Amino acid sequence: MIVALAGGVGGARLSAGLAATLPLKALSVIVNTADDFQHLGFSISPDLDTVMYTLAGLENAEQGWGLREETWHAMGALEKLGGETWFRLGDRDLATHIERTRRLAAGEPLSRITEQLARALGVTARLLPMSDDPVRTLVETDEGTLAFQDYFVRRRCEPRLVEVRFAGSERARAAPACIEALADPALEAIVLAPSNPYVSVAPLFSVSELARAIDRRRVPLVAVSPIVGGRAIKGPAAKMMGELGVEVSALGIARHYAGRIDGLVIDDADRALAPAIEALGMAVLVTDTIMRDGPSRRRLAEATLAFAGHLRRQGRWRVGVVSA
Amino acid sequence: MIVALAGGVGGARLSAGLAATLPLKALSVIVNTADDFQHLGFSISPDLDTVMYTLAGLENAEQGWGLREETWHAMGALEKLGGETWFRLGDRDLATHIERTRRLAAGEPLSRITEQLARALGVTARLLPMSDDPVRTLVETDEGTLAFQDYFVRRRCEPRLVEVRFAGSERARAAPACIEALADPALEAIVLAPSNPYVSVAPLFSVSELARAIDRRRVPLVAVSPIVGGRAIKGPAAKMMGELGVEVSALGIARHYAGRIDGLVIDDADRALAPAIEALGMAVLVTDTIMRDGPSRRRLAEATLAFAGHLRRQGRWRVGVVSA
Repeated sequence: MIVALAGGVGGARLSAGLAATLPLKALSVIVNTADDFQHLGFSISPDLDTVMYTLAGLENAEQGWGLREETWHAMGALEKLGGETWFRLGDRDLATHIERTRRLAAGEPLSRITEQLARALGVTARLLPMSDDPVRTLVETDEGTLAFQDYFVRRRCEPRLVEVRFAGSERARAAPACIEALADPALEAIVLAPSNPYVSVAPLFSVSELARAIDRRRVPLVAVSPIVGGRAIKGPAAKMMGELGVEVSALGIARHYAGRIDGLVIDDADRALAPAIEALGMAVLVTDTIMRDGPSRRRLAEATLAFAGHLRRQGRWRVGVVSA
Repeated sequence: MIVALAGGVGGARLSAGLAATLPLKALSVIVNTADDFQHLGFSISPDLDTVMYTLAGLENAEQGWGLREETWHAMGALEKLGGETWFRLGDRDLATHIERTRRLAAGEPLSRITEQLARALGVTARLLPMSDDPVRTLVETDEGTLAFQDYFVRRRCEPRLVEVRFAGSERARAAPACIEALADPALEAIVLAPSNPYVSVAPLFSVSELARAIDRRRVPLVAVSPIVGGRAIKGPAAKMMGELGVEVSALGIARHYAGRIDGLVIDDADRALAPAIEALGMAVLVTDTIMRDGPSRRRLAEATLAFAGHLRRQGRWRVGVVSA
């Protein structure tokens, strides 16, 4: 049993690689829901949908979100009516939002809705929202506080980042299935996908019950660096690190996660950083981390699992973790 | 100035004929909203949309509802997710429901939203929902009480009709623009379109403020019979009349409206009924009432307006109306 912790595109791709590598039902993916928002009357869960569509093999890889072979007739008509179209919702994608919104309004927990949507799309991994309670990322910027999607999509991350907060996290419980997956005696490793540390991963750890369950693990937690050669593979992670005064490199990522993870997978391009990262008290695996297609996703998943297996056999987990 | 009272398809077609005949802005169409309902989280106004799309020249004539050249990708995806698809919403049509729902939730009155949606689609007539307050048609049947769309769409009018009620009508105010249009000193006639008397027209009169404004008119009210040769041109009017024990004919329609209208337009096929209808205290125009295309809609509109103009010049209005 493997638990993956995932945000958007990077998390989705590594999760798909893991799902392709592992036996059916051996993978649980815990996904950030702090980028969820209400828009046009819909309850939208962008990270959850990116992971779900990718696990279903239906993702639009060029776009990085939404479904492939999508049409945009509803958005086109909405534009003619003078409606809000800055957050693009494809026609088929709309069905996901319609169904999720209807069932949330009927009182069903997000985790049960997600399980059933994922199953309907043919996803075999367990797809778990981090919480059934609302947690919402708020981005403090030089232009004031912005709701996450306002910052991320509407403003294209242009305002300068000052701080990220997660409203509701103090009251949010972890979704029960997340705690079950992390407490499973058959669990072998936790894989932290190459997702944005500030807006995809930090929300997961902002839910204290989830953070505690992760920190209480008896297996290694290995992360894959989202920064390769000083740049983010996808998204604004590098820009955010720069604005926060953090070194934009795999070493910066290692420092960010030091004390929390047992191993870091970095790209061949960053081989020279390995000694400095190891000096932070974590193991390092250097390999090709670019997930350009199915085989490379799978290869990275296999290498990451082998790395975690190696650490596990050596008893190297929570080496740098200060006991709570 | 002309006011048309309209329900679904028949009302939409005659309204489009009137709009094509009259100068810009001379036509106000007051539309039934008692078939409005909440579905999949949307506030849907089927009659209003049928009239709006038809006035915009965008209607799907074969289907009798929705937009032409529509796609169904959202519904197809929703079906795969196990969602409810008995009420079909096209991709472009969804934009109307998204925008209306969003603005209703923000507290805007339906009449203002409708005005702006209609303008965005290029409608030049004034499109007026009968009320900004919710009125909901409930159909008492041999299988119990059904919400209108449950009866009409999901059950295809199969249950036997016992009675039709309009929940909320006792508290509903007429939309202010309806009252203004009916009180306009330039008003020349009110045209009651060939809509279903029980579920399209009766709701309009169930709003007492609207019924009073119509009954207080100083111009003729002429109706076009929705029954031709003992059959309804479209929809379940004939089936309903039969189940209510009413004669399924233009004479049955005339009896239904006796005391309320000043003149009835009947089809050439029903010429023999004219004397019996006149004996009920209303004028009769016999003409071709089948609206098979744009020119025939326009011809019927012109004939109906000429008939109303003739009655007006003769001072023949509210002949059979018992003063309130």
